Amino acid sequence: MRKIRLGMVGGGRGAFIGGVHRIAARLDGRYDLVAGALSSDPVRARESAADLGIAADRSYADFAEMARAEAARGDGIEAVAIVTPNHLHAGPAIAFLDAGIHVICDKPLCATRAEADAIAAVAARSTARFFLTHNYTGYPLVRHARQLVADGALGAIRVVQVEYAQDWLSRSVEAEGQKQAGWRTDPAKTGGAGAIGDIGTHALNLATFVTGLGVEALAADLQSFGPGRRVDDNANILLRFENGARGMLWASQVAAGNENGLRLRVYGEKGGLEWAQEDPNRMALTLLGAPKQILTRGGAGVGDAWTRIPPGHPEGYLEAFATLYDEIADAIMGKDCPLLPGIEAGLEGIWFIEAAMASVRDGSIWIPRK
Amino acid sequence: MRKIRLGMVGGGRGAFIGGVHRIAARLDGRYDLVAGALSSDPVRARESAADLGIAADRSYADFAEMARAEAARGDGIEAVAIVTPNHLHAGPAIAFLDAGIHVICDKPLCATRAEADAIAAVAARSTARFFLTHNYTGYPLVRHARQLVADGALGAIRVVQVEYAQDWLSRSVEAEGQKQAGWRTDPAKTGGAGAIGDIGTHALNLATFVTGLGVEALAADLQSFGPGRRVDDNANILLRFENGARGMLWASQVAAGNENGLRLRVYGEKGGLEWAQEDPNRMALTLLGAPKQILTRGGAGVGDAWTRIPPGHPEGYLEAFATLYDEIADAIMGKDCPLLPGIEAGLEGIWFIEAAMASVRDGSIWIPRK
Amino acid sequence: MRKIRLGMVGGGRGAFIGGVHRIAARLDGRYDLVAGALSSDPVRARESAADLGIAADRSYADFAEMARAEAARGDGIEAVAIVTPNHLHAGPAIAFLDAGIHVICDKPLCATRAEADAIAAVAARSTARFFLTHNYTGYPLVRHARQLVADGALGAIRVVQVEYAQDWLSRSVEAEGQKQAGWRTDPAKTGGAGAIGDIGTHALNLATFVTGLGVEALAADLQSFGPGRRVDDNANILLRFENGARGMLWASQVAAGNENGLRLRVYGEKGGLEWAQEDPNRMALTLLGAPKQILTRGGAGVGDAWTRIPPGHPEGYLEAFATLYDEIADAIMGKDCPLLPGIEAGLEGIWFIEAAMASVRDGSIWIPRK
Amino acid sequence: MRKIRLGMVGGGRGAFIGGVHRIAARLDGRYDLVAGALSSDPVRARESAADLGIAADRSYADFAEMARAEAARGDGIEAVAIVTPNHLHAGPAIAFLDAGIHVICDKPLCATRAEADAIAAVAARSTARFFLTHNYTGYPLVRHARQLVADGALGAIRVVQVEYAQDWLSRSVEAEGQKQAGWRTDPAKTGGAGAIGDIGTHALNLATFVTGLGVEALAADLQSFGPGRRVDDNANILLRFENGARGMLWASQVAAGNENGLRLRVYGEKGGLEWAQEDPNRMALTLLGAPKQILTRGGAGVGDAWTRIPPGHPEGYLEAFATLYDEIADAIMGKDCPLLPGIEAGLEGIWFIEAAMASVRDGSIWIPRK
Repeated sequence: MRKIRLGMVGGGRGAFIGGVHRIAARLDGRYDLVAGALSSDPVRARESAADLGIAADRSYADFAEMARAEAARGDGIEAVAIVTPNHLHAGPAIAFLDAGIHVICDKPLCATRAEADAIAAVAARSTARFFLTHNYTGYPLVRHARQLVADGALGAIRVVQVEYAQDWLSRSVEAEGQKQAGWRTDPAKTGGAGAIGDIGTHALNLATFVTGLGVEALAADLQSFGPGRRVDDNANILLRFENGARGMLWASQVAAGNENGLRLRVYGEKGGLEWAQEDPNRMALTLLGAPKQILTRGGAGVGDAWTRIPPGHPEGYLEAFATLYDEIADAIMGKDCPLLPGIEAGLEGIWFIEAAMASVRDGSIWIPRK
Repeated sequence: MRKIRLGMVGGGRGAFIGGVHRIAARLDGRYDLVAGALSSDPVRARESAADLGIAADRSYADFAEMARAEAARGDGIEAVAIVTPNHLHAGPAIAFLDAGIHVICDKPLCATRAEADAIAAVAARSTARFFLTHNYTGYPLVRHARQLVADGALGAIRVVQVEYAQDWLSRSVEAEGQKQAGWRTDPAKTGGAGAIGDIGTHALNLATFVTGLGVEALAADLQSFGPGRRVDDNANILLRFENGARGMLWASQVAAGNENGLRLRVYGEKGGLEWAQEDPNRMALTLLGAPKQILTRGGAGVGDAWTRIPPGHPEGYLEAFATLYDEIADAIMGKDCPLLPGIEAGLEGIWFIEAAMASVRDGSIWIPRK
Repeated sequence: MRKIRLGMVGGGRGAFIGGVHRIAARLDGRYDLVAGALSSDPVRARESAADLGIAADRSYADFAEMARAEAARGDGIEAVAIVTPNHLHAGPAIAFLDAGIHVICDKPLCATRAEADAIAAVAARSTARFFLTHNYTGYPLVRHARQLVADGALGAIRVVQVEYAQDWLSRSVEAEGQKQAGWRTDPAKTGGAGAIGDIGTHALNLATFVTGLGVEALAADLQSFGPGRRVDDNANILLRFENGARGMLWASQVAAGNENGLRLRVYGEKGGLEWAQEDPNRMALTLLGAPKQILTRGGAGVGDAWTRIPPGHPEGYLEAFATLYDEIADAIMGKDCPLLPGIEAGLEGIWFIEAAMASVRDGSIWIPRK
Repeated sequence: MRKIRLGMVGGGRGAFIGGVHRIAARLDGRYDLVAGALSSDPVRARESAADLGIAADRSYADFAEMARAEAARGDGIEAVAIVTPNHLHAGPAIAFLDAGIHVICDKPLCATRAEADAIAAVAARSTARFFLTHNYTGYPLVRHARQLVADGALGAIRVVQVEYAQDWLSRSVEAEGQKQAGWRTDPAKTGGAGAIGDIGTHALNLATFVTGLGVEALAADLQSFGPGRRVDDNANILLRFENGARGMLWASQVAAGNENGLRLRVYGEKGGLEWAQEDPNRMALTLLGAPKQILTRGGAGVGDAWTRIPPGHPEGYLEAFATLYDEIADAIMGKDCPLLPGIEAGLEGIWFIEAAMASVRDGSIWIPRK
């Protein structure tokens, strides 16, 4: 099977998520990383490219030049991964879409509503596709959960509890020079949001992906507990879903003892399910009147879709991420891949961030999605 | 050690919580149940008394007569357990307090604010004590958690997540003649509240007991999912605590797969703890920068206060309930027992119920405790 | 319902298991403790009796006198609990059985094969019953497991893995004056066995109780890791069951991190089940080809036999122990109670201890049950 | 960083472990798979090679030709992965070692003692290295456990309990044409062993890797429960380690409800640890007198060695496998990699298999390591 020529914007030495995208792209062997604008610092960009075996003449100092040059080459990249901080998504996304190159963009979509609208406008007219890496949707049991709900196994959904708890910002480590904390708590780079953007959007996306229900309104209470912190680091949010279901969303980066605690619980008329990202190969399913069942990735009654190895052999975060890359390759090859998150998921996330901030400004009032 | 003479109001054949109170009273051998008005149905009252070895002349047809008669006897009861539905708490509570007999009252305190104020007024002037059986405070690790917070192990508290999830009202079993469901979903008997009163008050009490923080305000979203149901069966509530901590409270009786899922998570500047009632002999404690610790009832670093048997030998719900009875006996004997819930906890619960309903009426606005 | 008049031998101040028996007898309200020979030290015996509300004239200095005197009274005890160290079981058991008083004896049965045979001989001819408190058989899910196996839910049993791991003897605390450790590691008081007798017999009993299969042979490796220790504190044992099933039994008191880790796993042609005493309200059941189910005490598909309170309200060690006392009361009242352990379970335990020691002496050879 | 040229023997269409090796080699981007003898069926070999992008002229019909041809090329492979059934390891291992090409061999080492000795002899004289993919040693927490033991955190080791339980052979699926079951239960292809070779060797290796202790002797009981099965499918084994520690090893493929249940528990004078492969990002560590700690991969107190992503982002089986490939690349580049399993681990495994079978033949007697 032929490999897809991939480029990357961001992700140079010292970055985090860029490396994850590269492993994800490599794991199933369907991409060749052949070009990059890996850093805005030209030296670091060049050195990072060399680390990764990218030819020197395809290491670019900026994304605009890269889009132009790659579009002009016969062997130019077919897709680009954008792995910069939030406020640097819109520029390259628009440039590459305009150049007819597929975009694989990290979340959240961007920093502002205006940027989001601009990306959406370009995406709508481009021949190229736009993909948003809401990577948690790549977990096999998350997809199985979505299917269970769609098949009506739980009946009409009533209650959705979703949370994403971390503790790495319990202290104000941004003041100590921690690079990841630096940009993620800098309102100029995030668009003003903290936890709600960084992890809250993942939680929201997981809830809507699994339930198939859009959010109709939210009411939020946001806090900044870290001394001197300029963005929220804890968010308590009430949710109303379009079918009448209700829920809560908790996103926190100051919850000591939580490493990466994304958890979803969904309850319907006929049953409930519970899944936690830190234990992703198991999911609890209870049908009313019967004992709780522990479903396992690839196990009895689940099937082995989206898995590489048998049940009991844990797959994790990287495999789930790779599943998105694998499907994006399929999509680029022309296959229909309805589970892949795209511009709609991105717009929902930007609404979520802005609505939460608006709700807080006015005393936690309900903000409708419209 | 001499035994305390105990009476009971409610708790006849077919009741649930009365039997729990009796086991709790018996477990540590400090009470003799010698009188009762066990049912408003005289035949059932008499037969129930006989079941329990209560002498026929101390089985009463109504609580008022019982209060009068027992107060008049030289060997009359010293304390009475009130285990009737919510709307039948105030009458006996006032009667027995007025008669100088200690009252051990099931929660919530009563059905209305007016009743609550009346009980509080009598309690203030009575020589007898008033105890409210917020039984979950009797778990050794809950008390240890409170001590950890009080000792500053977690630093200033920032985030409190508490939930109480059940599934037994997923279907409208009250329409099928289920007795417990019948009165618990009858607004005339509960005072209008459903899940918020029945289990939400437990969750609130647990949160304030452990953190030592009062609630300053709440904003609520309440739902009734059971077809035809007249009270809330799911409650999503935002909380603000008096020191600036924030939290959420979820109470649900329609969450399939949850039997009696009371869970508390508390996060502070320096650490966090997590406890779940269904696994009460373990508690997770994480101090920032160190691995999570699993504390066990009676185990290393915890001590054996409020336990009867060594770590690894599970104690449960009945033992926790019995610990309240054990301490109430101490208190009656004159010992200082600061952990016992009393009228203040009851008033907080009634505020919580009424505030939640008020918040919903006005679009989930914040209702201050004042 | 009338109460049974109960006596106790052993269990004075400072003892452990005597207090457990008393709570167990009290929990369901079916016994009155009215007589005792609570200590071989007459002062402690008298003071302990006073603590417990036993009349002074029914506090005896020795069990023989107690058996004689109580048998002679019109209101004498109907049953006696024997809660002394192992080597002091046979004397009172024989005396009370001979006096026509039912015996409730702690495990293991006694210290030697000769004593065991003597008790069995008396039990066979006595009008009184003999009960052995293998208390773990009182857990509702243990009994449910037994029923599942008996009903063929697992098919023919193939593999049985049972273990009982503790860590309280990791250091040689018997040399530091710890009373429980003192007699439990003194071969003169245990009959020579350490962990195999103290906890190994519980593990064996659990395995045979649930599977309904006797052990046909064992091969053992026993160790004493505690410096200066005179009895085994770790036992690794291979088991062969009468139907061809095979298994292993591990008993250890030096396994750091285990408080009271009694665990059973049973696998058959059609399914498997797993239960752990420290989490006794849950049991995993897997039928081949279907997801694992988590059964809960009193929960869906299990039923509420042997429970006092609903699922999700944890019952524990004391309730399981009380269930034996409750059934013993039934048995004394004349009801058929086939699940209660008696002399046969005691003889099996004594064989187990002696066979393990014999196997070790000859290089871990197989010792048949005969 | 330059990539290593890799070949593969076995692993054509329909194989299992070959695909795992390829993902492992790809994940960290340090290998190029450029040659293969992927199947003994020439058509399947050619088609499989095409699937993987291997040039047609480097797809070989047999391993001997491949070793010769690749050794002769200037751009020939530097290393070869051998992923055939056990009885087809020795031939290629010897051929490639003789050709000066590094060998990465799946476990167990081979089918017979004679083959093992032959491989060892060639390995001893070859300029090329021999690596055995005991992949579970690649888990970060397994390596951390080894370090904890080596550092003396647990004190002298006393007790080792290791088990590897699966259920996929509960029915005799080899009779139904299941390919993996076919060769794994065919004594001609395995060398006579079933579960003890397929998974027991993993369990043994894990125990000795973590404890750093060799096995001194074993006594075994082996069973074949599957109707018509010709190899063991359940193994109960007593172990004695060289420092006096004792243990048990259980390997089963008929334990319903276990998918890939490799679990290790190690107890020493000062503490104990517990790890399970199905939950590989957590490990329990208890130091006597202190609460149990839950260590996490990359988490507090552990460090991020051998990890790719932060704590809370699960890594699994493939990442652990890839860590071996990553280190093998280091070793090939000349770095000292003392944790990599090699010929010694292979010889230990072959001894284990043969000793277990010998012990059973003579009534579970102890078989010394030498």
